[in-house]
Amino acid sequence: MVAVSPSPSELRDQIDRWLEGFLADRSQAVPDAGDLIAEIARVVRLGGKRLRPTFCYWGYRATGHSHDDRIVAAAASLELLHTFALVHDDIMDSALVRRGEKTTVAAHGSDIALLTGDLALVLADEGFMTSGFDAETLARGFGVYSRMRHEVIAGQYLELVTSTKEAPSEEEARRVAALKSGFYSVAEPVTIGAVLGGASETIVDSVRAYGLPLGEAFQLRDDLLGTFGDPDVVGKPVDSDIREGKRHLLFVKALARASDDDRAVLLRDWGRADLSPDEVEHLRSILVGSGAVTDIEALIQRLASAAREALDSVEIDTQARAALGSLIDSVVSRES
Amino acid sequence: MVAVSPSPSELRDQIDRWLEGFLADRSQAVPDAGDLIAEIARVVRLGGKRLRPTFCYWGYRATGHSHDDRIVAAAASLELLHTFALVHDDIMDSALVRRGEKTTVAAHGSDIALLTGDLALVLADEGFMTSGFDAETLARGFGVYSRMRHEVIAGQYLELVTSTKEAPSEEEARRVAALKSGFYSVAEPVTIGAVLGGASETIVDSVRAYGLPLGEAFQLRDDLLGTFGDPDVVGKPVDSDIREGKRHLLFVKALARASDDDRAVLLRDWGRADLSPDEVEHLRSILVGSGAVTDIEALIQRLASAAREALDSVEIDTQARAALGSLIDSVVSRES
Repeated sequence: MVAVSPSPSELRDQIDRWLEGFLADRSQAVPDAGDLIAEIARVVRLGGKRLRPTFCYWGYRATGHSHDDRIVAAAASLELLHTFALVHDDIMDSALVRRGEKTTVAAHGSDIALLTGDLALVLADEGFMTSGFDAETLARGFGVYSRMRHEVIAGQYLELVTSTKEAPSEEEARRVAALKSGFYSVAEPVTIGAVLGGASETIVDSVRAYGLPLGEAFQLRDDLLGTFGDPDVVGKPVDSDIREGKRHLLFVKALARASDDDRAVLLRDWGRADLSPDEVEHLRSILVGSGAVTDIEALIQRLASAAREALDSVEIDTQARAALGSLIDSVVSRES
Repeated sequence: MVAVSPSPSELRDQIDRWLEGFLADRSQAVPDAGDLIAEIARVVRLGGKRLRPTFCYWGYRATGHSHDDRIVAAAASLELLHTFALVHDDIMDSALVRRGEKTTVAAHGSDIALLTGDLALVLADEGFMTSGFDAETLARGFGVYSRMRHEVIAGQYLELVTSTKEAPSEEEARRVAALKSGFYSVAEPVTIGAVLGGASETIVDSVRAYGLPLGEAFQLRDDLLGTFGDPDVVGKPVDSDIREGKRHLLFVKALARASDDDRAVLLRDWGRADLSPDEVEHLRSILVGSGAVTDIEALIQRLASAAREALDSVEIDTQARAALGSLIDSVVSRES
C-alpha cells in the first residue's frame, strides 16, 4: 500500500519502477529498437536523484491532489527527457564518463548515441501523453512540457555560441544557465505538475517564482561542482569544464575580477585541452583568488532565499510545501 | 477563398504557408533558438513534394470531412518531423548535398545539425498538438503519430546494424525499408489523417492496407533513384548509396542473382568510398545484369496494385479516393 505522502526514497522507487516497466513495454512494442531502449535503460539506471520528476510530483501535490499513479508516470517521463538531453550533450562534448560510467557516445559511438537520444525524446513524450490524465489536462500540460523542450535546446545552442566568445557578459552567461538548466531542471517541471493538478493562475505563478531562482541556483552549484567537486562523488572528471573552456558565470566573474596577470592566464589557458594538472590547479586558484567562487556562493544563497520567499507566500498543501522546502536545501547543498 | 478540394499545388501552398507562419511564431516565442529555426526553415524550403502531409490530409478527407485549417496544420507538422529525420540522417551519413543544396551538417557542422534536428522533432510535436483539434482527437492521433516516430528511429537503427552485414537477407532489407520509409512516409501519415477524422476501424484498416504496400513501393523507387536517377533531378549524388555500401533490397537481390564473378565484385567493391566512376558504372551494370532492377520494378508494380486494391475495396469520400489513387501513380513513377 502506497503511503499518502511518499518519502523521497519511496518516490524515487516508484519513479524507477515506472521507468523500468514503461521501457520494457516499449521494447516489446517495437522490438527492432530494443537495443536502443536497453541503452536508454542503462543510462537511466546510472542516475539516482530523479530531481525533475520529484519537482513535477510536488508541483502536482501542491494543488491539493493526493498521490496517484498518473502523476508518477507523467513526472517519471521527464527523466527520459533528461536522458535525451544528456546523451546528445555528451556527443557534443565528446564526453567519455558520466555518473562514473561510460557515456553512450563512448560505449557505442556517435551514430548510436544520436539515435538513442532521439528515441529517449520520443519515449518521454509518449510516457507523458499516456500517463492517464484526461485529454484536456494533458493538452494543457503538454504546452508547458513542449516549451521546456524548446528552452533546453535553445540553451544548448546558446552555450555553443557563447563558448566561441572570449568573454561573454554576465547576462549572457546567466541566460545560458537559465535556459539550459533553470527552466528545465526546476521551474518547468514544478509548473507542469501544478498545471496537471489544475492549479489556479496564482499557484502556477508562485511555483514558477519558486522554481526560477532555484533552477539558477541548481546550475550555479553544478558549475562549482564541475570544477571543485569530488570526482568520485560527482561521477565525472572535474577538470573538463576548464579543459573545454566552459563560459559559465563562474568563469565570467573571475575574468572580470582577476588581476591583469591572472586575467591573461585565464584568457590563455581556459579551454586548453592539454593543460597539466598543475596548470588546472592554478586556474582553480585564480577562480578562488578572484573572489568569483565566494560571489557565486553568495548568489546561490540569495537565489535560494528568493525561492523560499515565493514558497512561503502562497497557500498550498502543507506536505507539498514541506517537500518543496527540503528540495531547496538539497539543491543548494548537494555534492553531486 | 479556399476551394472545397484543393489541387495538389494549392494544398502544397497551404502547407507551406502554415510552415512559414508556425516557424516564424516559434522563433518569436524563444528567440534564443532563432538561428536553429532559420536553419529548419531553410531545409523545409528545399523540399517541395510535401508527400507526408498530403497523405495525412487525404486520409482525413477520406472520412468525409471537408477541408479545414486544423488538418492542414496537423498534416504540415509531419514535414517538420521529416526535417528532423533528414537532418539527423545526414549527420550519420556525413552527407554533403541534399535537394541540390548543402545539408545542415555540411553548412554548420554536426553540433548545430544535432540541435537543429532535435528542435525540428520538438516543433513537429508542437505543431501537431496545437493544430486545433479537440484534446480527445489529438490524443488518439498522437498515439499513431508517436508510434510512427518510434518506427522511423527503429528503421534508422536497423539500417545501421544491417549495413555491417556482408549479405543481409531479403527479409531484413525489406524490414528496414518498411520501418524507415513504408510506415513513416505513407502508411502512418494516411492513418493519422483518418484517425483525426474519427474514422471507423474499417476505414483505418483500409487506409493502412493502402499505405503499407505503397510505402514500401516508395522506398524501393527511392533506392532505384538513388543509384540510377538523374542527380540534377534527384538533388543529390547518385553514387553515394554504392560508395556507402547501402544494404537495400536492390543490393541483396543482385547479390543473390549475380554470377560468381559478379558476386565477388559486389562483395569487394560495394561500399568502397574510393571507387572510380568506371567502377561505379560497372557495379550499376551488375545490378542491371543480375535482373535485380527488373525484379524491383516488378515488385513496385505488385505493391502499387495491392495499394490500389485496398483503396478500391473501401467506401470513402470520392474526392479522397481520386486523390489517393493519383498519389499511387506519382509515388510509383516519380523521378525525384
